[in-house]
Amino acid sequence: MINTLLLPELREMLATDDQAALREFASALHPARAAEFMEGLSASEAWAVLQASDLAKQVEIFDFFDEPLQVEIVELVEPKQIAALVADLPADDRVDLLKEIDRSVAETLLPLLPLAERRETLRLRQFPEGTAGSVMTTEVARLSERLTVREAMESVGRQAEDLETIYYNYIVDENNHLQGLISARQLVTHYGKPETPIADLMQRDVVTVHASDDQETVAAKVADFDFIAIPVVDDQQHLLGIITHDDVIDVFREEATEDAHMAGAVDPLDQGYLETHWFTLVWKRGLWLSILFVAAMLTAVALNNYESDFQKVPWLVLFIPLVISSGGNSGSQSATLVITAMTLGDVALADWWRVVKRELLMGLCLGGGLATAGYFCAFWMLDDATPIEALVLPITLVMVVICGTLCGGILPMLFRRLGLDPALMSSPFVAGIIDIAGIVIYMNVAVAMLERL
Amino acid sequence: MINTLLLPELREMLATDDQAALREFASALHPARAAEFMEGLSASEAWAVLQASDLAKQVEIFDFFDEPLQVEIVELVEPKQIAALVADLPADDRVDLLKEIDRSVAETLLPLLPLAERRETLRLRQFPEGTAGSVMTTEVARLSERLTVREAMESVGRQAEDLETIYYNYIVDENNHLQGLISARQLVTHYGKPETPIADLMQRDVVTVHASDDQETVAAKVADFDFIAIPVVDDQQHLLGIITHDDVIDVFREEATEDAHMAGAVDPLDQGYLETHWFTLVWKRGLWLSILFVAAMLTAVALNNYESDFQKVPWLVLFIPLVISSGGNSGSQSATLVITAMTLGDVALADWWRVVKRELLMGLCLGGGLATAGYFCAFWMLDDATPIEALVLPITLVMVVICGTLCGGILPMLFRRLGLDPALMSSPFVAGIIDIAGIVIYMNVAVAMLERL
Repeated sequence: MINTLLLPELREMLATDDQAALREFASALHPARAAEFMEGLSASEAWAVLQASDLAKQVEIFDFFDEPLQVEIVELVEPKQIAALVADLPADDRVDLLKEIDRSVAETLLPLLPLAERRETLRLRQFPEGTAGSVMTTEVARLSERLTVREAMESVGRQAEDLETIYYNYIVDENNHLQGLISARQLVTHYGKPETPIADLMQRDVVTVHASDDQETVAAKVADFDFIAIPVVDDQQHLLGIITHDDVIDVFREEATEDAHMAGAVDPLDQGYLETHWFTLVWKRGLWLSILFVAAMLTAVALNNYESDFQKVPWLVLFIPLVISSGGNSGSQSATLVITAMTLGDVALADWWRVVKRELLMGLCLGGGLATAGYFCAFWMLDDATPIEALVLPITLVMVVICGTLCGGILPMLFRRLGLDPALMSSPFVAGIIDIAGIVIYMNVAVAMLERL
Repeated sequence: MINTLLLPELREMLATDDQAALREFASALHPARAAEFMEGLSASEAWAVLQASDLAKQVEIFDFFDEPLQVEIVELVEPKQIAALVADLPADDRVDLLKEIDRSVAETLLPLLPLAERRETLRLRQFPEGTAGSVMTTEVARLSERLTVREAMESVGRQAEDLETIYYNYIVDENNHLQGLISARQLVTHYGKPETPIADLMQRDVVTVHASDDQETVAAKVADFDFIAIPVVDDQQHLLGIITHDDVIDVFREEATEDAHMAGAVDPLDQGYLETHWFTLVWKRGLWLSILFVAAMLTAVALNNYESDFQKVPWLVLFIPLVISSGGNSGSQSATLVITAMTLGDVALADWWRVVKRELLMGLCLGGGLATAGYFCAFWMLDDATPIEALVLPITLVMVVICGTLCGGILPMLFRRLGLDPALMSSPFVAGIIDIAGIVIYMNVAVAMLERL
């Protein structure tokens, strides 16, 4: 969704080369808002607008652009011209950007960065996607234990311009080992006692995450503790960087969207729905659809074995969709509940037996309910079935629903146990499995109960 | 998931009434961690552990308990004993808690709160669930425009104990109209120039939300701007309170879980999966399952019209599940993509025509792919079908998949247009609708193409 409100004005300013007005536009608005108004511009127009402001403002606004526009601008502009801007981006965003742009542009750009930023970029690039190391930023206030409140405030004030947050400041020794934490809140509340040593105030039991921790785990930890940031350390407790609250929100949105896509049988998209190329979309949907198609084809193979039975008792055909959709829906419910509960940390693998008992109970209750309704419907629809024959449907429904709730409850946990993403076993895949089971159960019940077969 | 690591120690301390050790436990750990270790205790044990500490620490830890434990404790303890703790909770959490506990307990407790807290609670209670007003907290630093940096720091330092955050401080006039914002970062960076008037530093164009705004909209705004907090105002721009980053994370988790539940055809749960009473779970699942069951029953009614056709061409039965699941799966994909895109703000109602074009293209490509595969499968499985007759399956597949992608794309947008939650039109419901359409399409194609019918 693009905000087009100021596009005509911006283009007018560009056409008349009104530098003062462009600078005013960039400085008067919050950088996020300025970026929002610029999203509708082409990459070259956006770059021209940025040019009117000083570097610090350019960086602020650029950092709020959506990724596709960032990539387009960096690939368009001469590397030498844009290197300073790229160097001043927060380290985590810089690394993300360099990963996304054309490899040859990235290779030209990298040597143009100042040494410190280049080294940092290369180091951060090594952390695999999705780990704490890959989302952290290295710009964090490091303080010595020997400072007073006044000295700490002065030090933070001096460093502030280069820091993503000044609200949590970390105390390290000469070898960069993490010793403790002092928040800006603590500093401000001791404003009246500036000579207090920060060693007296600092919190020594700091909650940290390891650089190789999964970003989802990190986000959950920050959310549970209501932190603004969390420090990232290595095996030797060296302070590597921090992950801030806004990155955590991004992780939550990303993971929620990813889980939703998987629950809808789409390979997660990297970009927005409308931005994704239609061919990519066909591929990401087609892949999973094909897998589900193969599973569905197996239902045809299963039904093939019973062709003669349908000839003898034609009404059996009527309830095929009902049987498989009841099993699929109850299985979807169970899978969804167990997957979301695992994501939120409400259910651990150790709870598997409680989950099985719950889902068995659910299956009995829900299956029983549907069976009762099903019996009356079957009896009402069928002219040529005896009351005993009409029992085929309800008995099948109870069994299929129990099968659905159990599979839906257990498979995601099994997948987690095997180290796979439980979301792979969400609704459509559970439903695909239940479809086949449903048909086999239905026909076996029918063969067992109907004398005509 | 309950952390049982320290349960034996805590119970031992309680049994021996070791007040010093209990106090030590509460003060040495981060309150979130202390709360985590206490989750496994009974309400009366948890209350006994809290009693060992002073009120401020009790409030901190209590605020991190999961809601069920909070409710249990408040309902268990004498209202007079717990009133002080409840009064000191952040306003938004206090209001939530009073909503959850037994109504008679709440009515006893409310008059025991100090006048200011009582009034505040009554005022906040009026905001409907899910609005900005219902999640905001009223404890926010209010500063006058006439202060200097030094005076502002002193004022914030004095108020700090009662504030949820000191990182954003708001400037208001005598009538509490919001004038601007000054962050702790700005104060700290001007530590060296304490006589600077804050009027020179403050940001006057403050992004606000209205008390009646939807909490999802608010959360998206905070996330887009990378804010730590956002001020909530009324029609006259009076500052009512703020919503902080941790509340925003909670909103995102809540909404993501809710959407996932709806996509799995479960009425969203208020509590965790294992905490929810099994009877509530049966009800929340049974309701939606019954609606889907009625839809599935209509497939039986639809099939009933074609019973004689199945007698004449028995192999038509084989592909019923394949046809409906292909339609359902492609519809699920479209619904999921459009719903997540609308949640993220990537797709607006105005984009409907682009969505329709995309989904039509998707339907053609995906349907075409499945049809090709389907034709060969049908030809290979069927002994008694001619090459022309085997075309029934692929032609049906193309039409059903297009029907699926279009319904999946349009229905969620239509629901939003009607002011309903688009998530209601997620996978299972779209699939239910496509099931019926699929059967009708399949049989009509068959009747049109097969001379034997």
